[in-house]
Order: sequence, then structure tokens, then C-alpha cells
Amino acid sequence: MEVIRSNFKDNLSKVYEAIEEADFLAIDGEFSGISDGPSVSALTNGFDTPEERYQKLKKHSMDFLLFQFGLCTFKYDHTEEKYIMKSFNFYIFPKPFNRSSPDVKFVCQSSSIDFLANQGFDFNKVFRNGIPYLNQEEERQLREQYDEKRSQANGAGSLSYISPNATKCPVVIPEDQKKIIDKIVEQIEEFLKNEENESLELEPCTGFQRKLIYQTLSWKYPKGIHVETLESDKKERYIVISKVDEEERKRREQQKQAKEQNLCLQEELNDAVGFSRVVHAIANSGKLVIGHNMLLDVMHTIHQFYCPLPDDLSEFKEVTSCVFPRLLDTKLMASTQPFKDIINNTSLAELEKRLKEVPFSPPKVESAEGFPSYDTASEQLHEAGYDAYITGLCFISMANFLGSFLSPPKNHVSARSKLIEPFFNKLFLMRVMDIPYLNLQGPDLQPKRDHVLHVTFPKEWKTSDLYQLFSAFGNIQVSWIDDTSAFVSLSQPEQVQIAVNTSRYAESYRIQTYAEYVEKKHEEKRAKRKCTEDSWKEMERKRLKTQGSPYISQSRYYCINSFTGTSIVGKRSMSPIQEETGPDNLEEEGVPEDQTNSYAESPPDVKKRAKRFKKIKSEQVSAGGLTSNSTEIFEVPETW
Amino acid sequence: MEVIRSNFKDNLSKVYEAIEEADFLAIDGEFSGISDGPSVSALTNGFDTPEERYQKLKKHSMDFLLFQFGLCTFKYDHTEEKYIMKSFNFYIFPKPFNRSSPDVKFVCQSSSIDFLANQGFDFNKVFRNGIPYLNQEEERQLREQYDEKRSQANGAGSLSYISPNATKCPVVIPEDQKKIIDKIVEQIEEFLKNEENESLELEPCTGFQRKLIYQTLSWKYPKGIHVETLESDKKERYIVISKVDEEERKRREQQKQAKEQNLCLQEELNDAVGFSRVVHAIANSGKLVIGHNMLLDVMHTIHQFYCPLPDDLSEFKEVTSCVFPRLLDTKLMASTQPFKDIINNTSLAELEKRLKEVPFSPPKVESAEGFPSYDTASEQLHEAGYDAYITGLCFISMANFLGSFLSPPKNHVSARSKLIEPFFNKLFLMRVMDIPYLNLQGPDLQPKRDHVLHVTFPKEWKTSDLYQLFSAFGNIQVSWIDDTSAFVSLSQPEQVQIAVNTSRYAESYRIQTYAEYVEKKHEEKRAKRKCTEDSWKEMERKRLKTQGSPYISQSRYYCINSFTGTSIVGKRSMSPIQEETGPDNLEEEGVPEDQTNSYAESPPDVKKRAKRFKKIKSEQVSAGGLTSNSTEIFEVPETW
Repeated sequence: MEVIRSNFKDNLSKVYEAIEEADFLAIDGEFSGISDGPSVSALTNGFDTPEERYQKLKKHSMDFLLFQFGLCTFKYDHTEEKYIMKSFNFYIFPKPFNRSSPDVKFVCQSSSIDFLANQGFDFNKVFRNGIPYLNQEEERQLREQYDEKRSQANGAGSLSYISPNATKCPVVIPEDQKKIIDKIVEQIEEFLKNEENESLELEPCTGFQRKLIYQTLSWKYPKGIHVETLESDKKERYIVISKVDEEERKRREQQKQAKEQNLCLQEELNDAVGFSRVVHAIANSGKLVIGHNMLLDVMHTIHQFYCPLPDDLSEFKEVTSCVFPRLLDTKLMASTQPFKDIINNTSLAELEKRLKEVPFSPPKVESAEGFPSYDTASEQLHEAGYDAYITGLCFISMANFLGSFLSPPKNHVSARSKLIEPFFNKLFLMRVMDIPYLNLQGPDLQPKRDHVLHVTFPKEWKTSDLYQLFSAFGNIQVSWIDDTSAFVSLSQPEQVQIAVNTSRYAESYRIQTYAEYVEKKHEEKRAKRKCTEDSWKEMERKRLKTQGSPYISQSRYYCINSFTGTSIVGKRSMSPIQEETGPDNLEEEGVPEDQTNSYAESPPDVKKRAKRFKKIKSEQVSAGGLTSNSTEIFEVPETW
Repeated sequence: MEVIRSNFKDNLSKVYEAIEEADFLAIDGEFSGISDGPSVSALTNGFDTPEERYQKLKKHSMDFLLFQFGLCTFKYDHTEEKYIMKSFNFYIFPKPFNRSSPDVKFVCQSSSIDFLANQGFDFNKVFRNGIPYLNQEEERQLREQYDEKRSQANGAGSLSYISPNATKCPVVIPEDQKKIIDKIVEQIEEFLKNEENESLELEPCTGFQRKLIYQTLSWKYPKGIHVETLESDKKERYIVISKVDEEERKRREQQKQAKEQNLCLQEELNDAVGFSRVVHAIANSGKLVIGHNMLLDVMHTIHQFYCPLPDDLSEFKEVTSCVFPRLLDTKLMASTQPFKDIINNTSLAELEKRLKEVPFSPPKVESAEGFPSYDTASEQLHEAGYDAYITGLCFISMANFLGSFLSPPKNHVSARSKLIEPFFNKLFLMRVMDIPYLNLQGPDLQPKRDHVLHVTFPKEWKTSDLYQLFSAFGNIQVSWIDDTSAFVSLSQPEQVQIAVNTSRYAESYRIQTYAEYVEKKHEEKRAKRKCTEDSWKEMERKRLKTQGSPYISQSRYYCINSFTGTSIVGKRSMSPIQEETGPDNLEEEGVPEDQTNSYAESPPDVKKRAKRFKKIKSEQVSAGGLTSNSTEIFEVPETW
């Protein structure tokens, strides 16, 4: 379903419903660009650390706009043994909603725009009909503005009194009603003269009569009397007339207006928050969210609809755990055992094709009633809604394949199965040689890199020059850093020192070990920070803070367990293990109760959740529980 | 006429022709944004100097994309006494043309995009079908790449020899031609056996026969003989057969291929240069180019299609004089006497309406045959082609109005008339209080600003606080600089010192005169530059260089002549003066002959022209000629 500005509000409840009932969600984003960095190779060096990669993406990718968001919800029908899917394709644009609203600037990259244009992407739909959005800070500011307006409206001073809609001429009353209305007017006049009673209840009457009474009174008493319709126990409607002094009447009138204005302002606020409400609903659902190569999607979603990305990777992990408590990256899954050996190409289009063939089986998925179905044969790739759909299909096929290892084998593996847990919260890292994923649930892998050299050379050098230089060392791999430096990995770590030694007297180039390079880089950073007294002091403070943290020791643990040890566990194929009992073990699997209810309207309390995350993390880290559990099932590939 | 990528090449000659025949050109650009600065008021302070304004626009506006360029050419038909116009609306997009081409990033501003979207702007046309372009440096680089390819192709080594298109089976020769062809083949066989002659001329024959001969020889001699068609003095075509040894044959073949490849590469290069060719044609034509509020249009055009904007305003003026030797800004014209008093609103739409009424008369303009006409009643404003057209109409009306001051009055004033010269090369400066225009032909106006105060205050202050502070000084004008400072102009310069004196002991705010403020700013700049030894030295060098330049003294001249003196000349209405004799005084009016011929293909030699500009400028400056001439007719408004 295509969702644009004009049909967004009408379909929002459908979106909420789809999220609420789903077993899992698949998402995908289309952006106005990928990288404003100098070159892709510089942006994605094969030996980036996760921290470096995060910094590069944050610096070079966040100024682009996420302008199409695909959401595909999947719900398993146990009786029919098939998934029912609902696909939404949202067009998104930061249309300024009033004069004081933020005027967002975003960058477009010609190659990305050209690529989308060739796919038939409809830019007019984005720019003319895109759904607006606000991040949390902007929402807060707007809410404050509105609160101010509201309190002004509620205060007596600022709002001028507007008289009730006085009818300027007598109401035309049909002959058959005249008698009744005349009688009622007489009754009221008597009541108003009499000082005893404060209010007068009229006999129950028809809607048409009530209308005539209202109109007549509004004409006869232009200064206003208080007229109200109430309902009796017998569900009959009747009119109550009350005497009001001038002040009371004004107060009531203002109350009514303020109420209307509040509703109106709330509506305006909701309109401005726009698409962010969908992301809040996804976040608050706590459902498993699937994506393909989804690091950039996750970063953009948080950056655009929650808050500017934090400076540190560790903070990013905290925020992500609040917005997307459970993520699964199908590219990482397909690149990992038991899939790695039988899947050659993990690009989304190729993966989808591969997963239709043995030993996999194409999943049974149908569009829900009233939702258009996609035809995988016609390949509408790079429409976000379609890509999200395909991603979901890939996940189902791979999850079900894991069921074949069980005894007895199972055809259907649910999104809540323990079998897929090892793939949770690990986001694929593109083109990093020895760190397959960014680990959102703890410290990242730290490979030894004792076979890696850092080489500096004149800018005229090409890859062939490096191959020639290292021709004595057999197979090498070159990862360019910039014009004048690259990492070169040798096949045998023992040769590293030989290479460094032989280069000692070279004039045009310089070789150092990876460890030396990292050490020097840290030193340079320190030296740079020394420059200004203030930043130096701050750094000291930070350094003291982190020295005692469990991160470092944990990283070392990883290094030993996962990397020196891969040759032992890396080739082991998956052994049949016990499957979960069914979909009703939801609570056990750690979806907190407060996340399953009424998650639609309010954004998640990021700070509160962040604290919880910190607590869980430190518990896991000190017990070493998370990692040892994970590696039991999930195998880190030996080479990438 | 709408020009997009697919019909660009086919229509280029039409564009060239339209430019060549035109009396003047009108242009307009649509951009993806206006300013990425903090706010419009900060970007356009009422007391910006032209240098400051240039720097701000350069810094905050050049990352946007000019993605629609309107060109409207106007040619006067003396017999019919009307203008014939041709309007072109170019869609422009930096589509990468190959893998090594620049991947342009550009910024979009939501408010601008939303504005254009509301006008029905077609973004799909821009992004899917926009015409590419290269600036001069990119063109040079691509040309070098191609030259390298070409020299490789011409060298013997790299290109493998391809045999002539050998026909694989005997040619089917019609019965009536068999005898002739057989005879010719016999003749050739004889010639090849015989070692005496180097070449053989065949009898003249028909095209069909020549084709048969070519085919037959290509089949009979697959290794190739040299066959060439020549034309006799009698214009009869005949075939010449030459003996070639293997080497010679290869060489000739390669020559032919290289030629084809050259043509192909040239074609590719032309395609890549794309829309820049139109701008080169406009530049090389030397024609008067009209725009409305055109400073940003000019800056963007130069930045996108020529070179990144220079750092200094003076260099920008030089480059502009090369690309657009004669510019006229209709907003500046309409804001100047004799128009200023009778035109209230100079926005393009309002101006166009005003100029249809007395004392103006709507110009007679018709679309050329085959060109669509615009309907000014339907108001397709903000399509660049339409805006250029309207701009042209405004110019014609205003120019013709000037003719009413002549004795005898004239209905038609041409684009070459001396009457409009005072408006040349002066670009409207938006929201600057006392400097109406950026002067491209010399130093800028330097108003005294002795009634202006610079005030610093806490960031909580609002305009009302400033009004209160200066309540004793009568009417004031506030121009915000940033959150904590503003210029305040008093109505009487004598009160400036009083204001400064009374503020001496104030704690929360600080007042200084404009002169003091400028002096401090210069000092700060100097201090900043002191920081690094190198930049300091360079600054010294620059300072020594400019000390002797005629700019400073000229500026002083301006200051006295134009500003203290405005009260004398400012109110003088235009007096009837002698009009030009006709369109044939073209040469006298200073269009150099070398600019009227063959300007279509090559970009203007910016450096050469820049030198000429410098020469002219210094001559004018030393003689004081330009300015005294100008001020005679063109009146600088007293207040803006």
C-alpha cells in the first residue's frame, strides 16, 4: 500500500493494527545518497574497526534524506500454515508545517538519484506528497509552543469574548411545530423571570424540535443563555436551560473554545510528528525487525526520526537498543553458517532467487485482504516496500531451513524461535575483512590482525606496485586507505616481521605492523588533543572514566574466543537441537509486557530504556553469558 | 520550448541560432535552495557591504543546484515593429556520464522544494531527463583523458589490426551489371600482377556500380587492397585502386579507425559538456543579458558551468565580466529613477502587471514560429523559461518608457540604446539599505553610515527592547546581525555620539559607532591572521600589493560623489536627451567584432578576457570616466 501525505492519517490505524498483530516486521529505506566521502574505498576500508566505520558513516552519510520507508508486516496463520503480509510504502519529506518550523536541508548524490531515476522512482511523489516528520527534540519544542498557546487561550485576558452565534432574523418554524415551540418559549420566559430555580428541564423532544428550540433561543436571547442537551436513563434526549450571569456565560464559552482549540492543536501536532508516529509504533511494539544490510537504514531511521546520532559507537548501541530492541540482518544471516557455504551471492535480489531453490523452499506468503500483492517475478527492486517484502521472504526461508536441523525436523520456524536468536542484533559490516558484524548487544569482535601490514608510499603507486613489492610473500590482499597508504595482509603472520625488516632502508615506502600503526594513531590522537589545554583536561577525565570499564577485558576475551579459536569451531556444521515449543512462549523470550500494550501513540522513553540496557549489558558482560551462549550456535566465519 | 536530455542535441542548433540573431537575451534559474545559513535576516543584513554579501552568498548558497535554466531570446522586427521571442526551458542535472566522472552532491532546502512542488514543478523531469554539464576544469580533465585514449589508439602497439569488412560469400551481381564488373575485376587482376604501376584509375561509374565494385573487391581480396572514390574535374566520381604492402594497409586502416574513434570521443565529450555549451554560446555572443534580481542567477551560472567562485569579490567581478560582458537587472532598473517613484512593488509578478498600465505600455511580443507562446494571464510563474520571458517583457516596457523622455519621443528603445547603458552591470542587492547594487564594472559605493550604531546585548533581547532603548531618538531602524547584536540607524547623525556617550556605563549592552565597529572588525581580522606565521606573511605581501592600487582612492571618490551628493542629484528627473540613430550603430556601441562571429562552440577564454577587463577598468578608474558618465544619467536613490 502506498502511503503519502494525503492518505496518511486515514491509514494510520491500519498501520498500527498491522504492526500489533505481526510476528515480525521487515523494513527498508531509500536515500537521496549513500556517501559524500571522497571514495567508497576510503569510506569502507577492509580493516576498519566498527568504531571507525560508525564514525565514517555518521560523518559522510547522515546529511542525505531517507525519503522512502518500506514496512512489511508478517503474521503467521497456523491453520493455513502460511504468512499473511501487509506491505506499506511510505513517501517521506520534511515539508515545513509553519513559518517557525525547521527548514531541513538535505544532500543529494547524483549517482544515487540517477540510479533511482533509472528504476522509475517517483520524485514528484516524494516532494509533492511526502509525509512530514519531526524528531523527538523538534516534537518537544513544538509541544512547548502549543502549550504556551493553550495556556494563553485558557487565561481570561488574551481571548476576546465571542457572543453565541446570534441568528439575525426570526427562525422560520413550520406550522405543525409552532404550537410546541411557542409553549416552550413561554415556559422559558416564565423561568427566567422567576428567581427561585437555577435550571429548567424541558420535555424530551425530537432532534428537529431541539434544533428549532436552539435557533429560536439564540435569536431571542442574543446575549446568550446556557442551553444544553442531556440524555435521560431511558435514552431520551431533553434540553436543560440554565440561568447564567454574564461572567459565568463567558467562562463557559471560553472553556468550550479552549477545548476545541486544544483538540485542534493536538491534531496539528500529530500532523507535524507525521511519519515519526509509525517509527514510534515499530519501536514500542518491541517486535523483531528484519532488514537486509541494514546498518545505514537503522542509523538513518534513528537520526531522522529520533535524535542526531551520538558521537560514540557505544552510545549509538544504547540508543539503538531502545528504538529497535530486536534486529536481524538477513545479509549477516546469509553470510553465516550454515548458510555461508551454500549461498554464494548475498545481494538481496540474488539471495531471494537462491532461497527459492533446494535445499531451501520458497515460503508461503499471501497479501492480506485489501493489500496489493507483489510479483517477485517482475522485480520491482529498490522500491522500499518491495525490498522490505523480499527481505521478509528471505528471512522466512532461512529460518525455516534451520528447522531442518531439528529432530524431528520442522517446516516452520517462528520469529520467536531460539534458533534465530544467535542472529539478533548483529548488523552486517560491508567490506570489512575480519569483523563480520557490528554487535549491538555488547563489545565488538577484535581480530588480532597479526598478518596485516600498514604501508605508506608515493601517490603515484598503484595496486600493481604493491603486488610487486610483496611478490616474495605469496598471496596478498590490498586494502586502500587513501592515495598514499594501504593495508596489506599476508597469508602467513610469520612473514610480517620479515617484510618490516627488509623495508628498513627503503626510501620511497614505509612498512609497519598493524599493531605499530594502531599504537601510533593513538599517540597522534593524544598529541592532537594536547594542543588546547581544555580539551586535554576533558580527555584525561574521559580516559580515567573508561579505564575501569569492563569493555577492554571483554574485548580481549572475544579476541581469544572467536578469532584464534575459529579454526576449531569454524568448520563445525550445525547440530540438531531442541526447538521451541510454540508461539505462546512469547513472554519467556523476553518481550517486556509494557511493550506489547498501547505502543502506538507515544515515543518510547529512550533514556529509561537506555538505563535498562546498560544494566543488562553490564550483567551480561560480567557473567560472560551473552557471548558464550551466542557462539554455541552462531559461528563466526573464519575469513570474510 | 522544453529542452531535456533526450532532445538537447537535436535542438542545440536552434538555441545557437536564437542567441545569434537576438537583440538581447533574458535568463532565469530555479534552484534546489536559496540559503543554508542560519536565517534570512542574518544572511541579508541591511548594512552588509557588497563584499560581505558576496561572501555570504558564496558560502551559504553555492551548494544548491541550479536545475532549471530559462533562456528567452528577443529579436526586434523593424518592419512589423514587434519583438519575436524564442523561449527555452532547460532541465539540468549532473548525471554521471561514466564511472570516473564527478559524482556531484548538491543540497536541497525543504522550503524551496516545497515551494516549487506547490507550483507544480516536475522533479521527475529534472532527475530522469536533466541535461548534464561540466565546468571548465572538468571539461579539461575529460579532454585529457580522451586525448590519452586517442594517442593510444593512434599508436601501433595497442590497437589490434582488424581486417576490412570481408564479405563472406560472393556478391550477387545483377545480370545487366555482370559484364562491367567482370571486366573491372580482370583489369584489377592485371594491374596487381604488373609491378610497374602503383595505382589504377577506373572509368567513372554510377554509385550502384561503385558499391558492387567495393563489395566484389572486399570479397576477392580479404586481406585488403586500397580502394578510394575520387571526383574528377567534371564532378564525375571514379574509383582508384592502389597497391599497398601489408604495413601500409594496416596504417591506413588504423588511421581510418582513429578518425572514427576521434569523432566518437568528440561526440562523447560534447555530450558530457552538455548544457555548458549553451552558457558558452551566451557568453561568447557578448549580447546583453537581462535578469530579474539576478545576482544569485549569475553566481550559480558561473559556479556550475565555469569554475568555483573566486574568494574575492574583485575576482568575481573579473570572471563575471568575461562570462557576461553586459548584464542588466530589471529589479535594479525598476528601483531606480525615473521608475522608482511610479513603481511600488518590484517583485517580478507585480512589476509585469504594473508595466501594462499607464504611463507604460505593454510591449508587442510574439513567439517565433514553432515556439509555444506563453499566456501572461495564466501566470506560470516560477518556471524558469516563463520568468525569463516576463523579465524580457518588463525590460522592453521600461526601455520604451525611457524613449518618452526624448525629443521627439520614441516608442521603441533598442537594447543597444545609450539610454539603458546606465543600468548595465549593476546587480540589485536585496535588503541592503544604502547600497542599491553590486557594481560589476568598478569599485562599489561606500555610503558613510554616520547615522548607524552597532549594538551588542543579551540574547534574550527582542526588537522591542531596542526600540525602548532608543525611544529618546525618534524613528530608528533595526537590522539584526545575530542573536546578540544589531545595527541601529538613527534618523539624525548628530545623535550618534549622544547615544554612544549615554551607554558608556551600561552593563547589559554596548553601543559603538559604525566606524568603530568596522575598525575593530579589521583589527580582529588582522589579529586572527597573525596566528600562523605563514598566513601572516602572505597577508603582508597582499597588503603591500594593494596599497598602491587605485581602488581605495576611487572608493573615496565614490563616497563623496554619490552619497554626500545624492541630495543634489537625487531628485532631478530625467531630461530629454538625444537618442541613438538606429540598430546599425552596433559597432560604435562597443561590441567587439570578434564576439559576433562563431561564438557557439568554444568557451570564452576567461583569462584573456580578464586581462582586457583589467586594462579597461584601470583606464576607466584613472580617468574617472565610467562613473562620471554613469551618474549623469543614472541616479542613485537617496534612500532605499
